[in-house]
Amino acid sequence: MLKVAIVGASGYTGLELIRILHCHPEVAVTCLTSEQSAGKSISDIFPTLRGRCDLLLENLEPVRIAEKADLVFTALPHKAAMEVVPTFLKLGKKVVDLSADYRLSDPAVYGEWYEPHMNPAYLKKAVYGLPEIRRSKIKGAKLVANPGCYPTSIILGLAPLLKKGLIRTQSIIADSASGVTGAGRSAKVDSLYCEVNEGYKAYGVGGIHRHTPEIEQELSLLAGVSLKVTFTPHLVPMDRGILSTIYAAPLNELTTAKLINLYEEFYEGEPFVRVLPHGRLPSTSFVRGSNFCDIAPMIDTRTGRIIVVSAIDNLVKGASGQAVQNMNLICGFPETTGLDALALFP
Amino acid sequence: MLKVAIVGASGYTGLELIRILHCHPEVAVTCLTSEQSAGKSISDIFPTLRGRCDLLLENLEPVRIAEKADLVFTALPHKAAMEVVPTFLKLGKKVVDLSADYRLSDPAVYGEWYEPHMNPAYLKKAVYGLPEIRRSKIKGAKLVANPGCYPTSIILGLAPLLKKGLIRTQSIIADSASGVTGAGRSAKVDSLYCEVNEGYKAYGVGGIHRHTPEIEQELSLLAGVSLKVTFTPHLVPMDRGILSTIYAAPLNELTTAKLINLYEEFYEGEPFVRVLPHGRLPSTSFVRGSNFCDIAPMIDTRTGRIIVVSAIDNLVKGASGQAVQNMNLICGFPETTGLDALALFP
Amino acid sequence: MLKVAIVGASGYTGLELIRILHCHPEVAVTCLTSEQSAGKSISDIFPTLRGRCDLLLENLEPVRIAEKADLVFTALPHKAAMEVVPTFLKLGKKVVDLSADYRLSDPAVYGEWYEPHMNPAYLKKAVYGLPEIRRSKIKGAKLVANPGCYPTSIILGLAPLLKKGLIRTQSIIADSASGVTGAGRSAKVDSLYCEVNEGYKAYGVGGIHRHTPEIEQELSLLAGVSLKVTFTPHLVPMDRGILSTIYAAPLNELTTAKLINLYEEFYEGEPFVRVLPHGRLPSTSFVRGSNFCDIAPMIDTRTGRIIVVSAIDNLVKGASGQAVQNMNLICGFPETTGLDALALFP
Amino acid sequence: MLKVAIVGASGYTGLELIRILHCHPEVAVTCLTSEQSAGKSISDIFPTLRGRCDLLLENLEPVRIAEKADLVFTALPHKAAMEVVPTFLKLGKKVVDLSADYRLSDPAVYGEWYEPHMNPAYLKKAVYGLPEIRRSKIKGAKLVANPGCYPTSIILGLAPLLKKGLIRTQSIIADSASGVTGAGRSAKVDSLYCEVNEGYKAYGVGGIHRHTPEIEQELSLLAGVSLKVTFTPHLVPMDRGILSTIYAAPLNELTTAKLINLYEEFYEGEPFVRVLPHGRLPSTSFVRGSNFCDIAPMIDTRTGRIIVVSAIDNLVKGASGQAVQNMNLICGFPETTGLDALALFP
Repeated sequence: MLKVAIVGASGYTGLELIRILHCHPEVAVTCLTSEQSAGKSISDIFPTLRGRCDLLLENLEPVRIAEKADLVFTALPHKAAMEVVPTFLKLGKKVVDLSADYRLSDPAVYGEWYEPHMNPAYLKKAVYGLPEIRRSKIKGAKLVANPGCYPTSIILGLAPLLKKGLIRTQSIIADSASGVTGAGRSAKVDSLYCEVNEGYKAYGVGGIHRHTPEIEQELSLLAGVSLKVTFTPHLVPMDRGILSTIYAAPLNELTTAKLINLYEEFYEGEPFVRVLPHGRLPSTSFVRGSNFCDIAPMIDTRTGRIIVVSAIDNLVKGASGQAVQNMNLICGFPETTGLDALALFP
Repeated sequence: MLKVAIVGASGYTGLELIRILHCHPEVAVTCLTSEQSAGKSISDIFPTLRGRCDLLLENLEPVRIAEKADLVFTALPHKAAMEVVPTFLKLGKKVVDLSADYRLSDPAVYGEWYEPHMNPAYLKKAVYGLPEIRRSKIKGAKLVANPGCYPTSIILGLAPLLKKGLIRTQSIIADSASGVTGAGRSAKVDSLYCEVNEGYKAYGVGGIHRHTPEIEQELSLLAGVSLKVTFTPHLVPMDRGILSTIYAAPLNELTTAKLINLYEEFYEGEPFVRVLPHGRLPSTSFVRGSNFCDIAPMIDTRTGRIIVVSAIDNLVKGASGQAVQNMNLICGFPETTGLDALALFP
Repeated sequence: MLKVAIVGASGYTGLELIRILHCHPEVAVTCLTSEQSAGKSISDIFPTLRGRCDLLLENLEPVRIAEKADLVFTALPHKAAMEVVPTFLKLGKKVVDLSADYRLSDPAVYGEWYEPHMNPAYLKKAVYGLPEIRRSKIKGAKLVANPGCYPTSIILGLAPLLKKGLIRTQSIIADSASGVTGAGRSAKVDSLYCEVNEGYKAYGVGGIHRHTPEIEQELSLLAGVSLKVTFTPHLVPMDRGILSTIYAAPLNELTTAKLINLYEEFYEGEPFVRVLPHGRLPSTSFVRGSNFCDIAPMIDTRTGRIIVVSAIDNLVKGASGQAVQNMNLICGFPETTGLDALALFP
Repeated sequence: MLKVAIVGASGYTGLELIRILHCHPEVAVTCLTSEQSAGKSISDIFPTLRGRCDLLLENLEPVRIAEKADLVFTALPHKAAMEVVPTFLKLGKKVVDLSADYRLSDPAVYGEWYEPHMNPAYLKKAVYGLPEIRRSKIKGAKLVANPGCYPTSIILGLAPLLKKGLIRTQSIIADSASGVTGAGRSAKVDSLYCEVNEGYKAYGVGGIHRHTPEIEQELSLLAGVSLKVTFTPHLVPMDRGILSTIYAAPLNELTTAKLINLYEEFYEGEPFVRVLPHGRLPSTSFVRGSNFCDIAPMIDTRTGRIIVVSAIDNLVKGASGQAVQNMNLICGFPETTGLDALALFP
């Protein structure tokens, strides 16, 4: 049994890791931390766990935690993660980091969008954990930077087009929408039920959302040239899910049938990507609670644009499910272990 | 591997059976039926299943279905169930019936609340499938009448009090509320998103809801005397969940501590009943997607009344999860097989 | 034009007062206060108001506010209200207080449920502002204690029965459910979208909710004897609305038809109470945004109990709409002025 | 008093017309029709109206209706509208048609997207009823084609840019999202609560939504050249609201400040358009129940693209509110009469 610690267990991605790992036959969760709720049982914070996982939450003392675990999931805000990740690595632990701290390979870019990086040397050691495009590197990694939720949906939606060089690289517009778990679990007026419910809005418009450089980094790598995107996030009154509607200009004429064919080939054998048949469109409700990414590429024949719609559960394929998928790869478990559950619908 | 058919697979309880059985290691779903959608793939009806269960929906031809299955789940409306259940039984199949057709042991009562029963002789053979109070009988059953959702929450909430003879049997008021999946998946104006959303209402008030006789039958059996209840269902704008707030007058003075103790003893060892500690209250969101029933009994010290609050997921412990629990008992599998998943929260 | 100040304008009841008064032809809102947001425009807090009400929020300095207003609405938390209300009264201003501070006539009861009262002498001067049962007193009042939301729905639901002496006074159980605006607008984890959404729960169970003594005070006055109630509040995932399902034992046999007749007579001429015809039931969505209270009384013929279902919008008839109704009475405007708007559905 | 008939009163736009006109001092609603519910009271269909508007629903007999009304709102599905509108016009009635039947000036285009037009001669007489760009023509109109909901949000969002010739006309992408009332009130599985709730999806992707030609017609008129747009609608789990996020390429360099200035000038004096200040973004919840269109234009400085976000209530500015605004213009009432109500938030 692999012993696993979850650092930052009282947030939604922490809970989701516990939920998923509860059904993972090769893993035992041995340690949970929470600065705010240390000393309490995790099942007092999240009553869903009562009787199944009643571990006490501990303070974040890396050395003591490392004694109990072989692998550590860090589900912390940015900055908090890079304060502890190096210690875990030095103590020989493997780390899957769900924060943004090791996703950007260039410390200057990190500095521009966040703040000066505390341990830039580690950026080179980190592997960006999107298995569908980086599987072999992840297998040997000690530190996996688990991708952001919006980037996951957008990169998977565009990878086949960029890899094959089929679109104008400066033409990309990604219009995305997220459920409210994306805003985390801290007490803010903006996240109150009555502020969010029955409303739909854009936020971070104009290229200012912090997922922008992550999206551009990975899309540029896929394209082989540096590119910029227009990325607009929206907030949807629902708990879970991200849907991205992505627009791009093709270099040559294409049909929807050809596009679907291309995507099916690109993602052949992928256990968690479903390319939808012609006429079917994704919905976040069809992936809720599962690790799937559903994708529908098509041509707007009137304007010639390519439109790709992709959907994930932001807490699963967009966070904790993908983190477990990465753990499976690192540890040599079958990649889908613990991730078999179908979406909960309705 | 046990071969299983799901009759009436295009409704929500049918889908929920498929979802749960997908993770059951001893079962293979071999046959799905739907009168409305025969010939289509189930994954065209429910895209959550794409790539994992793409069986074609068949017409409801009992003999042909029986050839493919060892056990049949009938997830049909009342009346439609009793039209086919006897055939399955005659062909030697075990049946877990999710409709109301075999829950009432007295055909006269069935006739009063529904219509004349078509095969009253089978009512005696059917076992009411609430494992926590009828486990040994279920183990030997060929026909299990899977309990209704409201009755499950109310009977589990009151069983310890009635079994121990602690309350005035005519004092029971059950005030319950359900998510909208309880109304099924048929196209009705009353179930439209905009009719239901942002509203809360009572319905079937005054002892006219068809779950009333089922509740009274089982509570009377537990009490050892015939009793009547006031049962008021409400509709909550959410997908899943039933919460019952139950009022009763104690025969003798009691404290909340004693009550909790009593419930803990009564349900000791039960894998799916959680008696909450003093000060904790159930929420439907803490059981969503799981087979748990959470119960909190307490005393209103100002009025002396007993109040019991219980919560289930109406599609799981209130329908398909309980049906799988019953299947496990009938077939000799460990009772929790396939039902380990934790609730999905948020 | 009556000049009006709203003290505590950055909460939901404050906003609702602004919304309603915007269409009131006899009133000008001249002053808004907010301790947290002083200096900002109210339309930066609530963008619904942009271009229609862009007043700057002021600090709560009673003397200065009194200079600008003839009447003051205090939409503050309890305790904060009684710190300023006496000053407004001394300066000759009329006050409609939306807090709990002047609702309980007995300072000992206030002390038991809240804390020691700071100006108990004012309790006798305050009139409990439920127009349907206290209209003439309100007309001459200088301080109106605007009723709580749950109490409004329960008192209006029971007034005819108690006034006519038709029920056993100790038999009352009020099972109520509220939308989330009832929890206010302060940043708390418990009120986050993802904590509330898709869940239904009871809270404050066992006679511990602070509306209990208010309900009992008014019901006792109606009944002419001291009585206690079992009151259980629930939280519904919706913005607005309270629905109360109330149970009581009749002293003599009654029919639903007689009950409806009795209620229609009792509320004849009331502009904001609608007694529903036989077979119709209230829903919170039918009163959303309006000042109506919809009531359906009936008999459960199987158990003989009376069941009354009543619905209001907690922010309108349960708070700001009723406050404007009280203002109209105090100031001699037609009682329905500014309150004509129909419910917003869907 | 203007006598008004609402044809097709049992749908959501019909109800919304009744709600708005209830507070209009110059109008009396004298006649309501509904084919499905003729003979019933409108308040049995929509209990919000009980006691305020209890008119009986009538069959759709144009001649008889015309006797009772000076102006007719036709809130019918397409085709049903053009079956009766000519009769009303011939009888000298003014008509505001909320269907799509008279919005497209070219019958060939109508035929391509819908079916052959039954009375193409009337297309020339109809005035497209978007007051902000067609006010003077509307004033003299006998037949107003009330704009679609998506087109209203998109045309108002782009009008200043196209009128001033500031963007590449073939660069427009409109990514829009609507609440569920946009799908109407007919009983369909796809509109059931549990199918829609907790999900976000695109639909009609690829230039196939029927609002596309209406958007292109009006944008082309504003631009002075024929243009095509990529328009993608999405469905949001909420009752009301449309938000459009619109992308376009500027011809020359622009700043957000200049853009806002331009929009403010263009919409100066418009009672129902609010151009938001820098840093503020629209939300559908800020316009819910009101006739406002909130607009925020800005530059994505990293990619140079213009992004405009606009929000309306699809049932008010996107349908019935705009229809009343048009009625006011036709009949010479002040344009804002009956439309003063502020948005209901939360």
